[in-house]
Amino acid sequence: MKRQNSAPTMKDVAREAGVALGTVSKVVNGIPVGEAYRKKVEDAIEKLNYQVNSYAQGLKANKTCTVALLLPSTLNPFFAELAYYIDIALLKRKYRMLLCCTASDINAEQEYITMAQQNKVDGIIGLTYNPNLRIEESTPYVSIDRSLGPRIPCVASDNFAGGHLAAEKLADLGCKSVAFLRTGSSLSNEPNKRKAGFENGCLARHLNYELKIIDDGDPFQEFIDFLEMHYHKGRLDFDGLFCVNDELACRIIRVLQNMGLRVPEDVQVIGFDGAKGFGHGDYYCSTIVQPTAEIAEMCVELLLQGNMSVRPPLICLPVSYAAGGTTKDM
Amino acid sequence: MKRQNSAPTMKDVAREAGVALGTVSKVVNGIPVGEAYRKKVEDAIEKLNYQVNSYAQGLKANKTCTVALLLPSTLNPFFAELAYYIDIALLKRKYRMLLCCTASDINAEQEYITMAQQNKVDGIIGLTYNPNLRIEESTPYVSIDRSLGPRIPCVASDNFAGGHLAAEKLADLGCKSVAFLRTGSSLSNEPNKRKAGFENGCLARHLNYELKIIDDGDPFQEFIDFLEMHYHKGRLDFDGLFCVNDELACRIIRVLQNMGLRVPEDVQVIGFDGAKGFGHGDYYCSTIVQPTAEIAEMCVELLLQGNMSVRPPLICLPVSYAAGGTTKDM
Repeated sequence: MKRQNSAPTMKDVAREAGVALGTVSKVVNGIPVGEAYRKKVEDAIEKLNYQVNSYAQGLKANKTCTVALLLPSTLNPFFAELAYYIDIALLKRKYRMLLCCTASDINAEQEYITMAQQNKVDGIIGLTYNPNLRIEESTPYVSIDRSLGPRIPCVASDNFAGGHLAAEKLADLGCKSVAFLRTGSSLSNEPNKRKAGFENGCLARHLNYELKIIDDGDPFQEFIDFLEMHYHKGRLDFDGLFCVNDELACRIIRVLQNMGLRVPEDVQVIGFDGAKGFGHGDYYCSTIVQPTAEIAEMCVELLLQGNMSVRPPLICLPVSYAAGGTTKDM
Repeated sequence: MKRQNSAPTMKDVAREAGVALGTVSKVVNGIPVGEAYRKKVEDAIEKLNYQVNSYAQGLKANKTCTVALLLPSTLNPFFAELAYYIDIALLKRKYRMLLCCTASDINAEQEYITMAQQNKVDGIIGLTYNPNLRIEESTPYVSIDRSLGPRIPCVASDNFAGGHLAAEKLADLGCKSVAFLRTGSSLSNEPNKRKAGFENGCLARHLNYELKIIDDGDPFQEFIDFLEMHYHKGRLDFDGLFCVNDELACRIIRVLQNMGLRVPEDVQVIGFDGAKGFGHGDYYCSTIVQPTAEIAEMCVELLLQGNMSVRPPLICLPVSYAAGGTTKDM
């Protein structure tokens, strides 16, 4: 499309204010000048509606006021929520967000990291399961859900506490024999702690439990086989299931219904994430809710804070439980 | 966080290639030089892994390779899908996407438009219901779902055809008496054509129909009152409902179930959008599917095409029908 270049320049401001160009430059860049000069320049800026050219400023100050967010995609509601809240946290601080959906382009993540190293973005917030990512420790990077090294902060939910809470809830709701179902990346990551927390909670509450754990890419049929193996004469061996996320919980609920089992009457099901239909409707299922807004705020705060002498390697934020119709809470 | 500036510069490339700085500049900016020089510079660029500083280049070429996407939020799955596919379409063309969720900041939209006018972004793709937006016709802007003026292209689904298709489907599926339920912005917009298409389809297929139309912000209770008014002795006057989007359809289905009505046995329901749980699961309901990937591709193509002598004011892309369990298709 055709462009226009009628926006006022620093020269126009200098002419309007009746001062030297260098004086305008000092005021714009926050360098002290005499009060009367500062006032003249500020009045001229306001009168002309002069806007600082952030690209020119970026070159000088090594600051672009832009942060890149790397997410696999926005199709998953937890990722979409993260994008929304991180954008809000950045807007509040007058920063812009470059969003890169990395699932479609395996090289994109590394390109953004190069941009950050070259000061073309001020930093990166990334949720990635790319095993080959190369990030220097000096790169301004905050990771979500996966630790990428001791000097790169990682922000996550308190996944262990979430798994523990799920076991406690199932016990409180009368379950005697439960199972944990998990699919996910085989790479070391924070969400894996949901399993350990759940086991710990089951032991504390004397719940019988089994685990069925498969990797991303393994056939879903393995869960169906597992459930059918534990199905005898119209009854399931389990009266409670904890699924590693809400999406899996919803798929498992359909399997149970196809087997003729009622949720929550015969089997109670708890998921993880706190995803909501259409972003603000009901929870898909009873769930351990991730504090998405707080995760977003923490990532932005950590990334943009000046003093990086304190660089916490892992920050875990508290989760909560929400009833969503697939447990007997009422 | 601490920055490093170890990336090779144009000077390093000149030294490595044994040519003048101006020669490197010419090659980088696509200005012809002697073949032997070009080869030397390209070899040096590859050897040093020199990356063009896009901010410096942006200043010179009035090009930033960055496009801003303005969306109310990413919490609505249709918006989240748009963000995903627009990012893919931009990545394919080596562009980056600034995403701005405007629901939280009423001034953000206007600020991005100013950025586009100042060539700080190469253009804007916006889905907005802001009635006060000021956009000059020369601003590179493509609108989604709402026409902002004759010289600003608008891309949308063929909403009229979608409404028509919903009426036809309900007729095909045996409905005799139907209703259209709509909530949305009172501003003129493309999705409003769903109503006209539906009415047209009902007339063509001799379906009795009623309309219940409320504005954003009106109480949802009005829909409940409407349905209860049409409920006599355990039966609803309607055997088919078309809801303006999937979110409304899901809420209405719950109201029907609370009234003791079965979906689809007693009442068949069709929504609009083609939203899917968790982005890739099942449709929430039977639905008119918006071609989100095609809308995204069209917006990006229109915005970035060089020749804007052809500036179509409105482009409507074809929709399709998908069964989602709330109609008697099987």
